[in-house]
Amino acid sequence: MARKIQGGITFPKGFQANGLYSGIKSNRKLDLALIVSDVDAEAAGLFTTNRIKAAPVSLSQRRIRGGQARAILVNSGNANACTGDAGMQDALRMTEKVSQFLTCTARKILCASTGVIGRPLPVNNILEVIPDLVAGGSPYKNMECAKAIMTTDTYPKEAQAEFQCSGFPVRIGGIAKGVGMIHPQMATMLVFLTSDANISREALKAALQTVVDRNFHTLSVDGETSTNDSVIILSNGCAGNPKIQKGTPAYADFIESLDGVCQKLRELLVHDGEGATKFIHISVQGAKSRTDAKKVAASIAKSILVKTAFFGEDVNWGRIMVAIGNAGVVVREEKIDISVGDVSLVHHGIGMGEAQEEKALEVMKGKEIHLSVSLGMGPMTAEYWTTDLSYEYVRINAGYKGRT
Amino acid sequence: MARKIQGGITFPKGFQANGLYSGIKSNRKLDLALIVSDVDAEAAGLFTTNRIKAAPVSLSQRRIRGGQARAILVNSGNANACTGDAGMQDALRMTEKVSQFLTCTARKILCASTGVIGRPLPVNNILEVIPDLVAGGSPYKNMECAKAIMTTDTYPKEAQAEFQCSGFPVRIGGIAKGVGMIHPQMATMLVFLTSDANISREALKAALQTVVDRNFHTLSVDGETSTNDSVIILSNGCAGNPKIQKGTPAYADFIESLDGVCQKLRELLVHDGEGATKFIHISVQGAKSRTDAKKVAASIAKSILVKTAFFGEDVNWGRIMVAIGNAGVVVREEKIDISVGDVSLVHHGIGMGEAQEEKALEVMKGKEIHLSVSLGMGPMTAEYWTTDLSYEYVRINAGYKGRT
Repeated sequence: MARKIQGGITFPKGFQANGLYSGIKSNRKLDLALIVSDVDAEAAGLFTTNRIKAAPVSLSQRRIRGGQARAILVNSGNANACTGDAGMQDALRMTEKVSQFLTCTARKILCASTGVIGRPLPVNNILEVIPDLVAGGSPYKNMECAKAIMTTDTYPKEAQAEFQCSGFPVRIGGIAKGVGMIHPQMATMLVFLTSDANISREALKAALQTVVDRNFHTLSVDGETSTNDSVIILSNGCAGNPKIQKGTPAYADFIESLDGVCQKLRELLVHDGEGATKFIHISVQGAKSRTDAKKVAASIAKSILVKTAFFGEDVNWGRIMVAIGNAGVVVREEKIDISVGDVSLVHHGIGMGEAQEEKALEVMKGKEIHLSVSLGMGPMTAEYWTTDLSYEYVRINAGYKGRT
Repeated sequence: MARKIQGGITFPKGFQANGLYSGIKSNRKLDLALIVSDVDAEAAGLFTTNRIKAAPVSLSQRRIRGGQARAILVNSGNANACTGDAGMQDALRMTEKVSQFLTCTARKILCASTGVIGRPLPVNNILEVIPDLVAGGSPYKNMECAKAIMTTDTYPKEAQAEFQCSGFPVRIGGIAKGVGMIHPQMATMLVFLTSDANISREALKAALQTVVDRNFHTLSVDGETSTNDSVIILSNGCAGNPKIQKGTPAYADFIESLDGVCQKLRELLVHDGEGATKFIHISVQGAKSRTDAKKVAASIAKSILVKTAFFGEDVNWGRIMVAIGNAGVVVREEKIDISVGDVSLVHHGIGMGEAQEEKALEVMKGKEIHLSVSLGMGPMTAEYWTTDLSYEYVRINAGYKGRT
């Protein structure tokens, strides 16, 4: 079973981290982060499906095909997106500089950026700070690193887990930043995972795909997929365990622990959703197919009308019906059941009446609300997490650019 | 050329209208409307694509296949949706009662409802008022009728036009209610159109489809398609013109005038978008196909992040790029141009710099903003209309149910 210990991104053996201020953010908060493995690590990544990708995404996607990496350089406050050739040159120069100080090839340095789109990076400031960033790296600077990737996040997000593999303790750690623009595909914004597992590249890639599908492709704050979303994992083998191969019991243990880390990060992301006052866990049952179940859950999670109703603690199940009907899935009104918490609101397509709505009002006042929808069309299910849509969400998003 | 005169839904010859309070709305505002043609009229309609349809939608869809109608009964304050068999029985009884007083078959009475979902109609109250509603019908009660279909609309919406057909003046009128939930497919909420044209059924259906595609399928306030959206046209031939057939010059004139009426109604709908402070006209050029152009325009129009940025008068073109990249269309970043008003913000995928953004800020302060996107991939274009997303939108939608 996974044992939880403090440590975040440097919890596994053989990892160092750092976070500094490099001159990007106008408020002088930490804005440059580094995650370094002491030795070459197996690397896998999943990146945004947006057709417009930031330079660091294109670069990391290309480099990760090589299969091994030493470090991830991350800046916040500037997305280095829609910056053309100059943006790519900046990403190349920054990672080149890191590689010099790590005495490895630049192809083993991955990178990521988050923040405002379309502004050139203050690349000279960043280059100037990189020697200190590398030199100051330490297993104890996980928190600086977690803070340096934040934008409108209100707290840093870390998680870790440990399991036994043939008597060797194997550790997994992770950090995330999210808040706005959180949406599948690639719900995550930025998630960085580290492990000291000795694991085959094939197994690492498959495990990452599995846990990302489970945890981050089912998360929606505002229905957008950014130019920069990235999930990257490095696994450096320092635990000394026998190599984990796909399909073995050790692989199942690895997935379980990785899933635990990602679940925790997902919770932290949802709870820090921009301007969120409520967290809604949507579960859809009784769908003909998994795709149908997902579409219905996503349609509810993304409905502005549903999200504002939750903010207003308004038991407006009609809007949930509208979202179900708009999901692009064959449904039959007379088979639909809806409940919040353990209060049934709709049975076979018809409202259960005002007494039930009164009861539901109590559930709606909570901070965490479980919304359950049954379609009565088959055996398949899906889950989704979303937030309400508040005044605060509008306030944050109406003036984001001035607040980097 | 279309001549504009007051009159709305009763502007064409041979139409009467009325609007009364029947006990649905708690604030005692008008909530029951009737549009009557003195003689049988050709009828055509387009209805919501939501899989969950209100009883009046199902009933009108079925009846309109008969091709002729005498009247449309509309209530506001209650959607008669998700009301099961009882809801259908209510719709049948109400239209039956209207037909008795018009001495025609109930199959010629169409109906529509708008308001809260999942509440039974106070059908006895409505039935009691129907004799007065029919008896009080008059060509001068167009405004009562336009008011009685309103929900959160802040003003009634009427339009009219006239053209000459072989020396006969032919008139078209219309009313609409919209505000929330306005979104393609079936952007409209409720739109009722009348004409005294003598026109073939085939031509009437084709003309309606054409103008609805042009005007109402390109309109988004909150990305939802309701259970009740309906556009219905009645054309009673009272103008005495030679019958208009598809593909003739008279048909072109009919479309032009109908388009004029629908354009006006669309403008009124957008300007009354729930909590809207700004009206954004999106035009997409340079797409490979019309479908691509529409998808890009729709993705921008529906982006919460774009809508909140407009509310905040924030020149955040990065969010527009994100929405373009999320449209599900092949685009090339380095070919994209973006401008607001006549200020260029992005050229070939790269920001034009802060001086241009300063200029754009002046445009963003306006109430009507034209956003132009060029994809550089081909010759096709599309247009879309949307609104910003304000505090007021959240306020209205967080507590709608209590305010019918």
